[in-house]
Amino acid sequence: MTQQHPEPLADPVSPSDDSASNIWPEVPPTAQVQLDLMVRHQLTGPNEPEHALGRLETLAMQLARIQQHSGSRVDGLRFESPQLVVFAADHGLADEGVSKASQDLTVKRALQMLAGKSPANTLASLHGFDVTLVDAGIATHLPAPADSAAAVPLLLRKIGYGTRNATLAPAMSAAQAQSAIQAGMDVVRHLPGNVLALGSLGVAGNASAALLLSRLCGVPLADACGKDQEPDEVFGQARLERLFVAASRHRRATSALDALAAMGGFEIAMLCGAMLQAASERRVVLLDGFVAGAAALVARSLVPAVTDYLVCTHRSAHPGHRLLLIHLQSAPLLDLELRTAQGVGALLAWPLLQAAGSLLGRR
Amino acid sequence: MTQQHPEPLADPVSPSDDSASNIWPEVPPTAQVQLDLMVRHQLTGPNEPEHALGRLETLAMQLARIQQHSGSRVDGLRFESPQLVVFAADHGLADEGVSKASQDLTVKRALQMLAGKSPANTLASLHGFDVTLVDAGIATHLPAPADSAAAVPLLLRKIGYGTRNATLAPAMSAAQAQSAIQAGMDVVRHLPGNVLALGSLGVAGNASAALLLSRLCGVPLADACGKDQEPDEVFGQARLERLFVAASRHRRATSALDALAAMGGFEIAMLCGAMLQAASERRVVLLDGFVAGAAALVARSLVPAVTDYLVCTHRSAHPGHRLLLIHLQSAPLLDLELRTAQGVGALLAWPLLQAAGSLLGRR
Repeated sequence: MTQQHPEPLADPVSPSDDSASNIWPEVPPTAQVQLDLMVRHQLTGPNEPEHALGRLETLAMQLARIQQHSGSRVDGLRFESPQLVVFAADHGLADEGVSKASQDLTVKRALQMLAGKSPANTLASLHGFDVTLVDAGIATHLPAPADSAAAVPLLLRKIGYGTRNATLAPAMSAAQAQSAIQAGMDVVRHLPGNVLALGSLGVAGNASAALLLSRLCGVPLADACGKDQEPDEVFGQARLERLFVAASRHRRATSALDALAAMGGFEIAMLCGAMLQAASERRVVLLDGFVAGAAALVARSLVPAVTDYLVCTHRSAHPGHRLLLIHLQSAPLLDLELRTAQGVGALLAWPLLQAAGSLLGRR
Repeated sequence: MTQQHPEPLADPVSPSDDSASNIWPEVPPTAQVQLDLMVRHQLTGPNEPEHALGRLETLAMQLARIQQHSGSRVDGLRFESPQLVVFAADHGLADEGVSKASQDLTVKRALQMLAGKSPANTLASLHGFDVTLVDAGIATHLPAPADSAAAVPLLLRKIGYGTRNATLAPAMSAAQAQSAIQAGMDVVRHLPGNVLALGSLGVAGNASAALLLSRLCGVPLADACGKDQEPDEVFGQARLERLFVAASRHRRATSALDALAAMGGFEIAMLCGAMLQAASERRVVLLDGFVAGAAALVARSLVPAVTDYLVCTHRSAHPGHRLLLIHLQSAPLLDLELRTAQGVGALLAWPLLQAAGSLLGRR
């Protein structure tokens, strides 16, 4: 069963050719021991046990570090114009039947979001997030939404009409990967606020994420795609076999950028760029779902300090996501078995950040 | 090592003498298959995978059932005047050194909450909850808070100045247990709203909760008090030995009411009454912490249908809480390793209920 052996291990945080490049924005690391002690002291009163607030304390520390508080105390956190950006794209891998959803669902879901009718839209209104949908590379031309006035702005940043089928060729060229990362950076550069929630949308995105997780972290492909947890065994086995063909074809793509081009997706590349740009501007980045997590693996390889700015908002029902979060060394805030990555998890977790801010602001 | 063997198993949900009593309020079961299907249909659009919203779907179903929706669709949920009630009491068991906190922390924490300076106060303001502190039996007279106007109303319902030391005698008499349950019911009867968050406060409350979990659910006492996870091994062993003395002394107290009187606490009894009353009025009940969970075990023995109304908001860092939630057959909404049970967890989880309401209201 060679198929289930781990892919060659590439240490994802050691400096590589990728991070030597100067084209990525500079991301300042946030570590500040003094600030951590201050936050801990403020959160835990004299009558409470140590770490009374558990992981809310860890979250508060991270947020205070991102916002670079100085002085003798942290007076709450400052959140401005929070944004949800969802990147949508299609994957040539879908032709291999690696997803049970048919590819036209990408367009349908995108239209539903543009019309303001997806669950993420509802929660975004509830919590005051602006929503932007980016067409990173949907396989068809996105028709204008039926309602004359779309509820959500659409940014057209199509790199192509879906990636190529990675079992047959690299999903994209190196130039396309670069363009997509730059486009993601550009999208964020033009958005206001200091909080950015990132989601994705696109049939077979999870398959692409599983390939990247396996390649960049040495996770066995069977585990990355959740073969053993797939209730339909025949489908699970067939999917693994198709992914194995893709992984074998691109076995030399070991650097993060090469793996991204060979087996990634346009939305993954743009998510990666969005994270880098947001972190360079000291925004808080809320990650939603397995695909955004895979983009974070790539971003970390390019600029290791980016992880200081990432908040993993939830663990999705996809079994690979659990392993991915372990490799990101991040405990998710929520674990509600969601099967959507369009921002619902980030928006559900958002009040926890607000709570951390309030608790830091109390006297 | 007989100390680590399970206590005799009492099936906590089978009808017992307790539930045959007519003094408990009537709690209507909420199951309604038709409504569940309607909720599921409303939450999951045609473009989304089944159970896309994971456990938020389960939560929405429970809330819709509690609010007894009828008709052809559920138009959101209706939450009115949410209340946080924290019951505070001392435990004679504290004399045995079963808690690392000294007993005077009960008063200090109560005063902090009355002054509006505990984390739960901050989050209650953030989310629009009224807070009430109930003195169910603190070991000392509660002095008036230093600020002339207390931020939080205090209800004096003292059953006694702390329970008796359960290693030497029953913690309370049967009459005291009954009075405490009735007092808890009475407190809720006079509060407005249809959402009730329940927390507790009192040194050694966890030890009492561990004894009840062990007795009512057949969990080994060592597991219920988290001996193996206690970093201070000497303390962990000593605590287990003291709890074992208490459990042995009251080995005949197998019914829920008898166990409550023998090894419970005044706050646990009042929490139990509060849940029963709230459920009988079809309020949503948010449980916070290990002690409130132990009260839920007792309440379930008295009136099994009460569990339909209970939302377990978080899993605390106490190892026994994990087992308790399994016996309550409830998956917590949050798992943030909190070490406080004064309502912080319930208030952190509250936005998830609001989100479920919004999602059910969308068209």
